[in-house]
Amino acid sequence: MKFMDVHHGMAGITGDQLKAAHDADLAAQGDEGVRFEQAWADPESGTVYCLSDAPSKEAVQRVHTRTGHPADEIHPVPLHI
Amino acid sequence: MKFMDVHHGMAGITGDQLKAAHDADLAAQGDEGVRFEQAWADPESGTVYCLSDAPSKEAVQRVHTRTGHPADEIHPVPLHI
Repeated sequence: MKFMDVHHGMAGITGDQLKAAHDADLAAQGDEGVRFEQAWADPESGTVYCLSDAPSKEAVQRVHTRTGHPADEIHPVPLHI
Repeated sequence: MKFMDVHHGMAGITGDQLKAAHDADLAAQGDEGVRFEQAWADPESGTVYCLSDAPSKEAVQRVHTRTGHPADEIHPVPLHI
């Protein structure tokens, strides 16, 4: 199942910080069977979106929590184009 | 510039409806220089995310409005992985 998660309060995030967070997720995801695929950030509003393929939203959150940035929203997105 | 837009209130959306909406956007986007790239939907919460490459958020909204589904949020996402 694909999941889109959303982080708020990330105003001013830089490309290096996004990459560091994504790399940390990639390093931690294996134990949970999660595969983070893409990430996008809007530094002005402080919003970050992450797309993953995962067994559950709880698995996505466990990875994000372990790497220090729990998501504010996690939506399963079974439909995608 | 990449943009992530979000539509709320789409509870119960089907795969066919998502494809029809996306196809309408693709047919209408040329005049605005917008290129819709991906779309994801959560029928349960009624949330739809669209990723586009566009000259401005106003251009994204003009296409979505023309095709009958204006976005509730449009965020530039200059950072992406």
